[in-house]
Amino acid sequence: MLHGPDIRTRRDPDKEQVVTKTAPAIRNGVDTPNLFGTIDAVRDRRELAKFQFRATNRWVIGTHSRTTIETFSGAGGEHVHAKEFAYDADHPAVLVGADQGPTPVEFLLHALGACLMAGVANIAAARGVTLSAVEARIEGDIDLQGILGLSDEVRNGYQRVRVTFDIDGDASPEKLREIVEQSRGRSAVFDVLTNGVDVVVDVA
Amino acid sequence: MLHGPDIRTRRDPDKEQVVTKTAPAIRNGVDTPNLFGTIDAVRDRRELAKFQFRATNRWVIGTHSRTTIETFSGAGGEHVHAKEFAYDADHPAVLVGADQGPTPVEFLLHALGACLMAGVANIAAARGVTLSAVEARIEGDIDLQGILGLSDEVRNGYQRVRVTFDIDGDASPEKLREIVEQSRGRSAVFDVLTNGVDVVVDVA
Repeated sequence: MLHGPDIRTRRDPDKEQVVTKTAPAIRNGVDTPNLFGTIDAVRDRRELAKFQFRATNRWVIGTHSRTTIETFSGAGGEHVHAKEFAYDADHPAVLVGADQGPTPVEFLLHALGACLMAGVANIAAARGVTLSAVEARIEGDIDLQGILGLSDEVRNGYQRVRVTFDIDGDASPEKLREIVEQSRGRSAVFDVLTNGVDVVVDVA
Repeated sequence: MLHGPDIRTRRDPDKEQVVTKTAPAIRNGVDTPNLFGTIDAVRDRRELAKFQFRATNRWVIGTHSRTTIETFSGAGGEHVHAKEFAYDADHPAVLVGADQGPTPVEFLLHALGACLMAGVANIAAARGVTLSAVEARIEGDIDLQGILGLSDEVRNGYQRVRVTFDIDGDASPEKLREIVEQSRGRSAVFDVLTNGVDVVVDVA
């Protein structure tokens, strides 16, 4: 998701001047004028901020399924991705699957890492920090007694998740750490995973 | 994840006999004897249920990153997937990205759909129901004022998520609906998304 820079910092006249004077239009591959322009446009028309994302999952065989992702709505209109994205998921052999794709819970780790990473790049660009390399390792611990129906005390999902960043750029370790922290504070996936969301499951 | 059948049903002597007499070894592509054997093995040695899943996300450019998924631990040992899986994520142009992959929040929808679907296939097989086609449409509503830093009242993540199943098989609509409901009740991803999980983000 688009992780906005810290607007309060940006509204500080002194700091805004610094950004204006020193930040190139493109830093870390982020089009910062476009990013700031998008935030300004949404500030003026709040209804542009409403998005709906969609996916369609189809059963293939056994625990193997395939999801396609193609359209979404937002910014006042309908959108089509540059191409239709398709992803397989499955269970590995040790969990009685054919390993045609990662498990669904591994995709949660991907979503979390990718969301935090997009935020890191955007926020670094907004703060005038040029990144050289960033990597995040994501681990999730789970006790399958829950989903196997062997215990009512053990939850179905992860018991804990850890993300460890290695981040290199032209800023102090403290400033790089603050960028990661700001990304965490504005991450859509981190919010959903830590705070939960209302999910309704229906049969047509 | 492996979604176990309802063990209480299976332990009912009458119903167990029905399963034994009528269920083929493979139904819906699910190796049900292996599935039941796995559950029995874990019942006897609970420590086999402890798994750790892992992913590594690397920044590419802008909001584009790539995650690789290769190893995991569980069932008392280390495992390597049949191949290394790799996934790109990005923001679309309307969110100042290059659309090199879906957004991270779209991968949450994929994870949810795939987890529920694997459970549906396993549970149907365990209950002697042969599926012909199953599809799930997953939608998530989000207000980007949160992640854009434009509102402290609007959360960063999804405000609500809906999953709608179309399910066909050799059972009554009520029984098919029960299978979806049982999958929801034993889904690892549904649990994490609805109840949240502790996530620690660190910088090495």
